[in-house]
Amino acid sequence: MIKTIGFDADDTLWHNETVFVATHARLCELLSGYHDASKVDDVLNTTERRNLARYGYGIKSFTLSAIETAIELSEAQVSADEIRRIIALAHDMLDHPVEMLEGVPETLSALTGAYHLIVITKGDLRDQSRKYQLSELDPHFAELEVVTEKDPATYERILRRHRLDPDEFLMVGNSIKSDILPVLEIGAHAAHVPYPHTWVLDEADRDPGGPRFHALNSIADLPALLRRLAH
Amino acid sequence: MIKTIGFDADDTLWHNETVFVATHARLCELLSGYHDASKVDDVLNTTERRNLARYGYGIKSFTLSAIETAIELSEAQVSADEIRRIIALAHDMLDHPVEMLEGVPETLSALTGAYHLIVITKGDLRDQSRKYQLSELDPHFAELEVVTEKDPATYERILRRHRLDPDEFLMVGNSIKSDILPVLEIGAHAAHVPYPHTWVLDEADRDPGGPRFHALNSIADLPALLRRLAH
Repeated sequence: MIKTIGFDADDTLWHNETVFVATHARLCELLSGYHDASKVDDVLNTTERRNLARYGYGIKSFTLSAIETAIELSEAQVSADEIRRIIALAHDMLDHPVEMLEGVPETLSALTGAYHLIVITKGDLRDQSRKYQLSELDPHFAELEVVTEKDPATYERILRRHRLDPDEFLMVGNSIKSDILPVLEIGAHAAHVPYPHTWVLDEADRDPGGPRFHALNSIADLPALLRRLAH
Repeated sequence: MIKTIGFDADDTLWHNETVFVATHARLCELLSGYHDASKVDDVLNTTERRNLARYGYGIKSFTLSAIETAIELSEAQVSADEIRRIIALAHDMLDHPVEMLEGVPETLSALTGAYHLIVITKGDLRDQSRKYQLSELDPHFAELEVVTEKDPATYERILRRHRLDPDEFLMVGNSIKSDILPVLEIGAHAAHVPYPHTWVLDEADRDPGGPRFHALNSIADLPALLRRLAH
């Protein structure tokens, strides 16, 4: 019997990866005098992967990696003005409005009251808190949990804090790697709602399965899933 | 009757501002070809203040502000290699070992069991979590709370979550602005333990006072304070 539902935020409640994809394109254009787009993307991904343990997730981490990428790709010829424009890209991302995904407010309204709803998101505390405030979804949720990494230990800690058995918890998200596999691993339920873009560092290395995995087409299918699980 | 004690982390449990002070000095030296140290510090402080709402606290925010400062002070003449050296300063800070303040483990050992102990720190989630892990103080604490801002609303939310009345809570920290004034404002107790350095953006605009304010010389004075408050 599900009591608490955890929602991923980026690309589950609101658009996020589209903003990064658009910024990647602007960065590739900015650095097109040094290398073509696929080379820029390659070096950026490598740099972000190398920096992940040190920087963590989020826009500031991306920006520092983008500056390092520009220095490397230009063989230290990139100008201060070009660096300034990379920082301006970051400011645009940090100031970007929050665009809700279709069906989100209606679905949350249908579930509020019947279930304890929480947001569980990884990333930068300041930026995630900003988007959460702007989303105006706070009345639906008991809590916003910003975590450094979505691994089984993190989900176990959250279940302990809320005094939940694993089969009383359902996680909803777009990332197989972060929202689905570690949740299934601890014996809880996980519902996957796909999003068109997945960041390369968030790609899963295996497919989920089993009776606690639920593949949905849209977040709007969640109330029907919960009715099925209640029987 | 105090039940729960909140501890600030940076400059209360472990050294932090000393690391920033040393990095400021290295940055001033790095940019000494453009301007003298006091000018570098002025522009850096102004830039950090301007970026605070957008970036939040922490080393990555400091680094982006330091790069912007270098571009501004050099009138966009700073080289890619100099920017790379600023990023290297950031890596040194992010990899810096955690140096405990004197008396911390002994004091926590004396209080563990008798009180519910939590860490309440503002800053970057990844970096604060890293330092918390490295400190090996986790066995003493029920929780690490990393918050975006230490204002009265934040402390009220924490008290609500722990189902505490204000007079059951004592906050311990070095920052009058962040650890003392907002805590006194919501009617809880606050103990100030001074640290030799205070970041200019964390300076308080007024003095604390009243029966719930407790000025200590050292964290080691905490058990005696708690004995007095219990009578």
